[in-house]
Amino acid sequence: MKAVGICGSDVHYLKHMRCGDFVVKEPMVIGHECAGVVEEVGSDVKSLVVGDRVAMEPGISCWHCFHCKGGSYNLCPDMKFFATPPIHGSLADQVVHPADLCFKLPDSMSLEEGAMCEPLSVGVHACRRANVSAETTVLILGAGPIGLVTMLTARAFGAPKIVLVDVDSHRLSVAKKLGADAVVQVSTNTEDVNSEVAEIQKAMGVGIDVTFDCVGFSKTMTTALTATTSGGKVCLVGMGHNEMKVPLTPAAAREVDIVGIFRYKNTWPLCIDLISSGKIDVKPLITHRFGFSQDEVEKAFETSAKGSDAIKVMFNL
Amino acid sequence: MKAVGICGSDVHYLKHMRCGDFVVKEPMVIGHECAGVVEEVGSDVKSLVVGDRVAMEPGISCWHCFHCKGGSYNLCPDMKFFATPPIHGSLADQVVHPADLCFKLPDSMSLEEGAMCEPLSVGVHACRRANVSAETTVLILGAGPIGLVTMLTARAFGAPKIVLVDVDSHRLSVAKKLGADAVVQVSTNTEDVNSEVAEIQKAMGVGIDVTFDCVGFSKTMTTALTATTSGGKVCLVGMGHNEMKVPLTPAAAREVDIVGIFRYKNTWPLCIDLISSGKIDVKPLITHRFGFSQDEVEKAFETSAKGSDAIKVMFNL
Amino acid sequence: MKAVGICGSDVHYLKHMRCGDFVVKEPMVIGHECAGVVEEVGSDVKSLVVGDRVAMEPGISCWHCFHCKGGSYNLCPDMKFFATPPIHGSLADQVVHPADLCFKLPDSMSLEEGAMCEPLSVGVHACRRANVSAETTVLILGAGPIGLVTMLTARAFGAPKIVLVDVDSHRLSVAKKLGADAVVQVSTNTEDVNSEVAEIQKAMGVGIDVTFDCVGFSKTMTTALTATTSGGKVCLVGMGHNEMKVPLTPAAAREVDIVGIFRYKNTWPLCIDLISSGKIDVKPLITHRFGFSQDEVEKAFETSAKGSDAIKVMFNL
Amino acid sequence: MKAVGICGSDVHYLKHMRCGDFVVKEPMVIGHECAGVVEEVGSDVKSLVVGDRVAMEPGISCWHCFHCKGGSYNLCPDMKFFATPPIHGSLADQVVHPADLCFKLPDSMSLEEGAMCEPLSVGVHACRRANVSAETTVLILGAGPIGLVTMLTARAFGAPKIVLVDVDSHRLSVAKKLGADAVVQVSTNTEDVNSEVAEIQKAMGVGIDVTFDCVGFSKTMTTALTATTSGGKVCLVGMGHNEMKVPLTPAAAREVDIVGIFRYKNTWPLCIDLISSGKIDVKPLITHRFGFSQDEVEKAFETSAKGSDAIKVMFNL
Repeated sequence: MKAVGICGSDVHYLKHMRCGDFVVKEPMVIGHECAGVVEEVGSDVKSLVVGDRVAMEPGISCWHCFHCKGGSYNLCPDMKFFATPPIHGSLADQVVHPADLCFKLPDSMSLEEGAMCEPLSVGVHACRRANVSAETTVLILGAGPIGLVTMLTARAFGAPKIVLVDVDSHRLSVAKKLGADAVVQVSTNTEDVNSEVAEIQKAMGVGIDVTFDCVGFSKTMTTALTATTSGGKVCLVGMGHNEMKVPLTPAAAREVDIVGIFRYKNTWPLCIDLISSGKIDVKPLITHRFGFSQDEVEKAFETSAKGSDAIKVMFNL
Repeated sequence: MKAVGICGSDVHYLKHMRCGDFVVKEPMVIGHECAGVVEEVGSDVKSLVVGDRVAMEPGISCWHCFHCKGGSYNLCPDMKFFATPPIHGSLADQVVHPADLCFKLPDSMSLEEGAMCEPLSVGVHACRRANVSAETTVLILGAGPIGLVTMLTARAFGAPKIVLVDVDSHRLSVAKKLGADAVVQVSTNTEDVNSEVAEIQKAMGVGIDVTFDCVGFSKTMTTALTATTSGGKVCLVGMGHNEMKVPLTPAAAREVDIVGIFRYKNTWPLCIDLISSGKIDVKPLITHRFGFSQDEVEKAFETSAKGSDAIKVMFNL
Repeated sequence: MKAVGICGSDVHYLKHMRCGDFVVKEPMVIGHECAGVVEEVGSDVKSLVVGDRVAMEPGISCWHCFHCKGGSYNLCPDMKFFATPPIHGSLADQVVHPADLCFKLPDSMSLEEGAMCEPLSVGVHACRRANVSAETTVLILGAGPIGLVTMLTARAFGAPKIVLVDVDSHRLSVAKKLGADAVVQVSTNTEDVNSEVAEIQKAMGVGIDVTFDCVGFSKTMTTALTATTSGGKVCLVGMGHNEMKVPLTPAAAREVDIVGIFRYKNTWPLCIDLISSGKIDVKPLITHRFGFSQDEVEKAFETSAKGSDAIKVMFNL
Repeated sequence: MKAVGICGSDVHYLKHMRCGDFVVKEPMVIGHECAGVVEEVGSDVKSLVVGDRVAMEPGISCWHCFHCKGGSYNLCPDMKFFATPPIHGSLADQVVHPADLCFKLPDSMSLEEGAMCEPLSVGVHACRRANVSAETTVLILGAGPIGLVTMLTARAFGAPKIVLVDVDSHRLSVAKKLGADAVVQVSTNTEDVNSEVAEIQKAMGVGIDVTFDCVGFSKTMTTALTATTSGGKVCLVGMGHNEMKVPLTPAAAREVDIVGIFRYKNTWPLCIDLISSGKIDVKPLITHRFGFSQDEVEKAFETSAKGSDAIKVMFNL
């Protein structure tokens, strides 16, 4: 293993020993955004040789169930996924992993960029689920790592106009630098939705076809459901609140659909293509780098937990 | 005009002078579920002759906007729709209406059945939006008129298993008689969701692919979002609550999508085909009939407003 | 193994030692329409126990390739399929087969009916590929076994009107008995296409949304492409001719799409549901039954090869 | 009227007095690729004022039929279309046209570029019908005007790899200059298909997801059907041959679908957006310009008819 990024869920497991319904009951290695070099291959493996640099898709699905056979292996109930209890993660010197989940990197792509295929995959899956194309105007709520990879993917998918929204001006300046057509800073005050929606719609200038809520609060979903144009789509990516208080009925009566995402499927080849062709540059997202000594590891997680300065914290092993 | 059914929205306008965002400011004729006999046709009309018995689609769209041209004329912002202020409805002796919204009834179909094309259209549009097919198991929350037409449509679309849920045992017995595979009576207590979901899932026996919420309360949407299988769909049809408190995130994380409906589009030819071919029998839904005298009209609206006994109240003019 | 049906491809291999691009180079067991009783299960198998009656899906795909992971395992280039050289078929006393391709039959369903899941799967896959629904009028060219299972499936999928076409009057009378709304007998004369199309369109009465060509000759595809309504679909199921002379351009200029099928995917659970629920009755398709002695086997293949009398010939082992 | 381009169909009408099934019986003005300045507006028109520079969509559909209401107005059987007999075209000083088919041009876009929206619309409609996205590799057969606009559109839709094929080396050099990743020169010899397919596949390097046949000969469709990857799509755009001799069955058995196109629908706003945003540059396609004197008109049509040098010939009125 050579490069491992820190994800919000890793920090969550570290602090709370759980993430959503997944509870850590025994000591567990974390980490699932990773790339490395092949040290050994099984006798049947033909796609890889020792020395290959590979990015790794973290989930092993069963291939027997309805979802796997039907093309939605991400919904497999028997999925074994890095750092989802009780499966160990990949923040380790070595891991054993199926060859078909190890994707060879072209020479033009670094191992760090390989590890970035994982967060980028979330953006890709979200954009696919919402059918983003060269004809789709896009609003993104939340300019954290996931909001940013969603923006980069929507751009690569041809989206003609993308507006980013956040409460944090630093994050918005990063979003602007990475290609947002416009950014809107909002408050945390839940009373402000209507005026903020008006401001967002003005920043877009045309109807909003798809909104990605990369925060997942009642307020952000209310904004999303209100701002999106009739017949459009809201994709719920962030998982801030579990239960939400939202104006579902007026949105449904305008045929604004809500789609959710769970991880991703079949994204690694595309991510490698998008990064290696230069269509997406993930390097500016890697803001901090650490080694793998005890000291560095602690500092890395502190940095990642601290907030808006750090986008992606990467270990180089 | 020969047959006009009473819809919940008609009752609502009568009682509250408004329905959702639509407010009645001047005296307005109500009624939009209707059929009649052609008295006169314009000189360019080739599809109809005087004396034709026709069912009428109530909305006139603009055909110039993005939605109309793109195949979603139901979302046209300039729609002129019977009994949506300030447009008069069709509970009248005569109306003037475009020929292409008047659909000739075959001899085998009564004018009352023609008027039933309107509520049936809601079921058809909902089943289309949710992609109900011969491979879709269906849960329907609410066994009122809309729940029942949705059930009849889902059956005609081939749904192999349909479960109806309501708080009212009489309605459920009607649902059972009209073809539900199973019915489940639930409470209005919001604490009972989990146990009720378990009971509903047991009644279905297999995964629930699509849930139609024909009520639209926080509780019913919570039930819908929880009961539907991963990768399935919830279609929000009922409009009970405006703002809802619901567990959106866990549903989104199982890729349970939410689709809404606004009226319908291109449904009359199909409804006429479904009714005239005998695939759907709407006659049992017409529980009460009234004439058009002052007395009868009042009784009709009282009956319709009263509740569970009346499914559809029909005027014969 | 208890019940094995004879398919046209089996007869073809027997007579010509090849079928399309697949060539038999060493002695090969044929047969792939089959059902049997479980004699032994692997230690990890949880879905089956000894004694279970099962229908078997004949193809083992790799689950590593683009097609398998993407939900199109039927297109897997490494597929190992019963009786496709060099893989042995299932016309044998015993076979070893993966548990997830053995589907338990309900008590209400015979082993013969289980074996019929295979040809029925072709009809199911064709109807799925062509999006047959309760709104789709269907024309089927060819009333052989595949034409008939396609008809039964289209009916179960809700198709409101189905017309069958063949050169053989006996086959058409079977089709009529099994539920065709109308049948049209045509000639083998390639000059007659236009008049035959007119006759077929008259028999349908309304536009033809989907045409299944279950023959696959230049003439049948010409009929299909000409008869289908603008914006409709032609599904090429039969494989009579390899190269065809057809009016592609006029069809393309009416946006009549052509879709093909290769085998099937994820069809067994649905087939079992359709048969066991009584929505599809495959028993009338089984016209001849034979035992497994040398004598009987020869007679069985003779009967199957001979033609229009035999629809499906079944071995009972 | 200020700018009118010459299309192959215009030349065809001029020379042969017919195009496909459309026959010219009385003197007819040709021309349908056009832009102009508004001279007068009807009293109900709110979207335009006198002096607006507009590009014009040439077809007026009925908005009453199944196709118009269902979102496929391009298939309307009652379409009135510029220069399709007996409707006059737009190569004239003035035309009367519905306001909703006149699309206002932004200041950044010339009238010539406005006229180019028409041929570009063919590329847009083809790419939509074939679902070209950032995940689709594209092969285009034919590097004439339509092949080139299809290439530009596929690029704008995000296609990661596009290969162009033609018999003419000059056209291929233009294609290369305008952005093709690779070009392959082929012969007119119908014996060479297999070796040419091998060469084309090598030039692509990866599987070919979508092939656009912008020629429409038996040979090009044979190439398309053979070269496209299993599960891919062939879009037939060119109309060279009416009847074709092609290997349909092997393509169908790999689930390579064939989709056709008829004109376009809802493309003008997108074309204006693509051109004015700079995502597509149509200026290099305009190779020759002429005035509207008798002399110039004759020269213009000669130039357009002559061949490979001229891509688009434009009148400036």
